[in-house]
Amino acid sequence: MISQEKDPGTPATPDAPVGTSRAHPVTLREVAEAAGVSTATVSLVINKKKNARIADETRQRVKAAIQQLGYRPNAMAKTLVSGTSKFIGLVADGVATTPFAGQIIHGAQDEAWKHGYALLIANTEGNVDLENDAINMMLEYKVRGILYSTWFHRTTDIPETLREADFVLVNCFSPETSARAVVPNEAQGGQSATDVLIRGGHRRIAFINATTPAPARDGRLEGYKSALEAAGIAFDPDLVLEAFPDQEGGYGATKELLKHDITAVYCYNDRMAMGLYDGLRENGLSIPDDIAVVGFDNQEVIAAHVRPPLSTVSLPHYELGAAGVRLLLGLDQAPADSALQIECPAVERASVAVPSKA
Amino acid sequence: MISQEKDPGTPATPDAPVGTSRAHPVTLREVAEAAGVSTATVSLVINKKKNARIADETRQRVKAAIQQLGYRPNAMAKTLVSGTSKFIGLVADGVATTPFAGQIIHGAQDEAWKHGYALLIANTEGNVDLENDAINMMLEYKVRGILYSTWFHRTTDIPETLREADFVLVNCFSPETSARAVVPNEAQGGQSATDVLIRGGHRRIAFINATTPAPARDGRLEGYKSALEAAGIAFDPDLVLEAFPDQEGGYGATKELLKHDITAVYCYNDRMAMGLYDGLRENGLSIPDDIAVVGFDNQEVIAAHVRPPLSTVSLPHYELGAAGVRLLLGLDQAPADSALQIECPAVERASVAVPSKA
Repeated sequence: MISQEKDPGTPATPDAPVGTSRAHPVTLREVAEAAGVSTATVSLVINKKKNARIADETRQRVKAAIQQLGYRPNAMAKTLVSGTSKFIGLVADGVATTPFAGQIIHGAQDEAWKHGYALLIANTEGNVDLENDAINMMLEYKVRGILYSTWFHRTTDIPETLREADFVLVNCFSPETSARAVVPNEAQGGQSATDVLIRGGHRRIAFINATTPAPARDGRLEGYKSALEAAGIAFDPDLVLEAFPDQEGGYGATKELLKHDITAVYCYNDRMAMGLYDGLRENGLSIPDDIAVVGFDNQEVIAAHVRPPLSTVSLPHYELGAAGVRLLLGLDQAPADSALQIECPAVERASVAVPSKA
Repeated sequence: MISQEKDPGTPATPDAPVGTSRAHPVTLREVAEAAGVSTATVSLVINKKKNARIADETRQRVKAAIQQLGYRPNAMAKTLVSGTSKFIGLVADGVATTPFAGQIIHGAQDEAWKHGYALLIANTEGNVDLENDAINMMLEYKVRGILYSTWFHRTTDIPETLREADFVLVNCFSPETSARAVVPNEAQGGQSATDVLIRGGHRRIAFINATTPAPARDGRLEGYKSALEAAGIAFDPDLVLEAFPDQEGGYGATKELLKHDITAVYCYNDRMAMGLYDGLRENGLSIPDDIAVVGFDNQEVIAAHVRPPLSTVSLPHYELGAAGVRLLLGLDQAPADSALQIECPAVERASVAVPSKA
């Protein structure tokens, strides 16, 4: 039996000042004294030992004392026996402080709680020393494993300290393909975005890609090409432009875009589409009648609220977090030698007109 | 002495598969065997007992064995002795998944780490059962205290379980004024926003307030009035409009706004200002030359990237989180019977013209 507290204290008083430090928490010994049993008996009742022979009446008396005194077992003590805690660590380089990647936390937490684990989150903002400290702290708290996540989809090195834990890469992946990873399916997302425009009756579709190298840049272009091919539309490299992936980039691409004979644009992300909206308006063009627009990311604060609301493709951040936990706990399997890819579903709004049924 | 592990295991092998479960962690016993000392001696070296008389040579041998085997002390064990862990809990109703309130996490974590604490974050999405489970879990892990935070500034009830902990309300407050709380200074923020327009030479300034009751609605109006009064401008209730606090609300307020003889608008938030931009443009008006606009929140993805970039007032989410930790640890004090108020600084961009020096 492990005795949780060294010093017998006094029970919490109901008239203690609100939200300020109080006396010691209730101890196992106090419960034992109140119930008139040994501390060993209290421990057996708390830990629900099956083989322990305790009279029902005694068990009830202990439970009543626990309730009356407000005793709480020490979760830390359990980890000494089991060797691991009921924590899953989440190391994030900016997930918690980035507009929409916070859903990685939401998904990871929901899935973790389902299986009796709590999330221990460290937000490192990409600081290597802080990251090392965070991983060391998690190892000292004997976490079941660590989700190592990035706020945008990218390749990553695996920190040496991380190798001491059971880990899964979330929204990033390593050239070491044996490391388990879960990432968004950029190519499928790009195909879905282009398909929204093709279903809208468009065949001259431009793609404004990002200038910055990233898996998203390659995958979203690949998906654009696949969609065109599946619809029997010839790929025209002149219709692929490039711009910095923000509002200013989209706005700045307007002039070049309008040199081409097109009826629709698929933008690398929603921020770019928001800037393009301003550029098209300044040229007296209306969306979707003159030009249809599709984005990528489904960044809610933008996509759902520009005029007209933007059709886009959703980055599955919630699902990435949840799938990361399932991979870690062995409930899902990643394919051998590659990352698990999560679907990016299309979200259709008013920036693409529905074709009239002829 | 507390023996951290029950079963002697095998040390981590460098050729273990990357990121998958491995053998048992290195035990205290293995360190003792490698160093040729007792487990008690290893424990004394690890815990840096001052009165322990251990030869320097022995101490070095133990340290070498710890490093060679990659032994990690169990942080959980320490909490059994000290009674509290080095955790601070953060209960959030949506902070981690809201565009900009995630900075509360960032600020709380930076401050917590500074003082040797790690954050244990639970995101409840406002679910009462989940919230209770989260607080109970934190109590079982013997957290030093709990920050109870909300993603928008509001009043809150204090959950009964929370009263068992040392706690601070962050971005919310209770009618029970004895509960420590830290909130943004809405009135000062509203005054700063209005001052940006007054300094820009404007005297006919409309305010589009929110329709939804909130401390921000009262405080931001109060600040508007104070700024006018300080500048000797008579308050005209006709110039205070109301709209739903999002893009559609701001857009919809345009028509009513343009009935008044004004040169500047202060919007309740940035989302509203973004919608108003569209409405003003459709009426052929240019910002800032025809109408100057100021928002509130400094929601980066909007304010820094609309055309022209929006002057606004920053919600001090990072500071709220940091101040919450300092209040909890007793490093800062809240005023008696009221919440600690944090300044909302003005962020000036191009939506208000700088007056020419005459």
